[in-house]
Amino acid sequence: MTRTELSSLGEFGLIDRIKANTKINHKTTLKGIGDDAAVIEAGDTCLLVSTDMLVENVHFDLSYMPLPHLGYKAVAVNISDIAAMNGIPEQITVSLAISNRFSVEAIDALYQGIFSACEDYKVDLIGGDTTSSAGGLVISITAIGRAKPTKIAYRNGAKKGDILCVTGDLGAAYMGLKVLQMQKVEFLENPQMQPSLEGKEYVVRRQLKPQARMDIIHELADLGIVPTAMIDVSDGLASEISHLSKQSGVGAMVYEDKLPIDKETYEIAINTFKLIPSVCAINGGEDYELLFTIAQEYYEKVKNHEDISLIGYMTEEKEINLATTGGQKVPLSSQGWSHF
Amino acid sequence: MTRTELSSLGEFGLIDRIKANTKINHKTTLKGIGDDAAVIEAGDTCLLVSTDMLVENVHFDLSYMPLPHLGYKAVAVNISDIAAMNGIPEQITVSLAISNRFSVEAIDALYQGIFSACEDYKVDLIGGDTTSSAGGLVISITAIGRAKPTKIAYRNGAKKGDILCVTGDLGAAYMGLKVLQMQKVEFLENPQMQPSLEGKEYVVRRQLKPQARMDIIHELADLGIVPTAMIDVSDGLASEISHLSKQSGVGAMVYEDKLPIDKETYEIAINTFKLIPSVCAINGGEDYELLFTIAQEYYEKVKNHEDISLIGYMTEEKEINLATTGGQKVPLSSQGWSHF
Repeated sequence: MTRTELSSLGEFGLIDRIKANTKINHKTTLKGIGDDAAVIEAGDTCLLVSTDMLVENVHFDLSYMPLPHLGYKAVAVNISDIAAMNGIPEQITVSLAISNRFSVEAIDALYQGIFSACEDYKVDLIGGDTTSSAGGLVISITAIGRAKPTKIAYRNGAKKGDILCVTGDLGAAYMGLKVLQMQKVEFLENPQMQPSLEGKEYVVRRQLKPQARMDIIHELADLGIVPTAMIDVSDGLASEISHLSKQSGVGAMVYEDKLPIDKETYEIAINTFKLIPSVCAINGGEDYELLFTIAQEYYEKVKNHEDISLIGYMTEEKEINLATTGGQKVPLSSQGWSHF
Repeated sequence: MTRTELSSLGEFGLIDRIKANTKINHKTTLKGIGDDAAVIEAGDTCLLVSTDMLVENVHFDLSYMPLPHLGYKAVAVNISDIAAMNGIPEQITVSLAISNRFSVEAIDALYQGIFSACEDYKVDLIGGDTTSSAGGLVISITAIGRAKPTKIAYRNGAKKGDILCVTGDLGAAYMGLKVLQMQKVEFLENPQMQPSLEGKEYVVRRQLKPQARMDIIHELADLGIVPTAMIDVSDGLASEISHLSKQSGVGAMVYEDKLPIDKETYEIAINTFKLIPSVCAINGGEDYELLFTIAQEYYEKVKNHEDISLIGYMTEEKEINLATTGGQKVPLSSQGWSHF
């Protein structure tokens, strides 16, 4: 019997394979696989449903991830998917597989973070499942949100000429991960070492306790702006621009000098890891910022927003290019994250 | 620092602990933790949301569980939770953690079962997450269903005098598990052996490919019956009667001679495992039948139904008793399933 390795498909290849076999039968299913959340008809509003699974030693390392932060992050990354549809989260379910090396106190610490995120994002914990695990900790969360049909931002609505925007700054969570991994190696080599986070607080916090940008969703509503397309930056900017472009049938031009990079991210990239900051911003994952496109008529409303950067525009040609600081035009490469 | 073992709490203790810390803020959250599914307001209907996590070597053993059956079962057990609310399932999300020992062909086999169940239960696969696993296979499914508010059957509505009913037969899935486990041991001792399922087909099928009783939900609707309380039998009859009784604030009297036990289950219990069949029916898990209570006025409508057994009635006294075939009245013991 033939054996095809999962690595030959990759995560997105596997999703495409599953999607190709999916039939939608219910008229209440307005959007299935292929966006940040599925969309279900619910009277005069729509429900948004998104789910994420976090696996120990794949998505997190408990040697440097405190359990309350992990609980918080597990919720925040799901809320971010609801935000990416321009929706308001209302409920979550939390399922855990836990081995008996975890004590009741450890589970309480994890839930402390989960409840803290529920409070910050105003969501109700409505259910879940708890079971034992022969291996590591697994957290599976489903988030449910709500939006009026006309307000939902899908990935496929970007038009030629639309302005490409991103919130906050990029690359910090990736630098935070590199710092934590470096300190773990140093600690294993010399258990006497005292890890110092001085000058690295921001990037480490971005890795350990990311925020879903619900603040931006409320501000866009206040400004009367519905993005033509939106996605959250979980796998890296290049990968997300590629999703928006492909699904919308357009291309993009991105300006390297417009990429928002925090000073700390910039300095750690160069001084500690000898990395090019813009490459970290383009390919680093887990920022959980929002990447979206808006019609040009909204330019005046967002141009001076301190937390939204206008990084480029959508093009008719289906290529994604980067205008470098050196004045060149090069293809924006997306390496994404290969899980397998 | 104190360390309290999870085993000292147990699964239900842990759920109670989480529930005690949960605050419900949204008026759209009609029912949170504590039933087969959560209930969310959705226009003039309600959405039902249920989630289950299946973990390799805890819930299934791939040495005797074929992947298509596993995929089917993972969907069916979630659909069963929607049925237990008297709802109609419409959508599911499927999240998987898979190690690289699984090939693309293996994942296809798993999805073959998932899609087959989607077809049988008429549900749309609308999303999910696929990730790698450092350990075994983990499947987390969320099912979404729909019901009119007046048709929902919660666990807490059983009244004194209500008739206690159960669908199908009990204990078979447990006998199927015992048969498969026995054959695994025999195979490990003698790899030349040819496992024979002759005379054991029914119990093994009940373990490997259980069905959610959507047929009964449609029949009850046709008969104009809304159960006063309902739950699915996943952890064993005694455990489920205990949930219905506690949440409804009543007790129950159950008749041993009314318990539905298939002939094959009966014979395998006695001849192969020297077990008392009614004990298997009372404490065996994973039957995924429906246990429900109805008002006495519906007695005539169900008394001759070939797939519904009237096994007792609800009492004012908050005890759960079994009237044995020997004419004794004894407390019905619930050992449930201890995961930890």
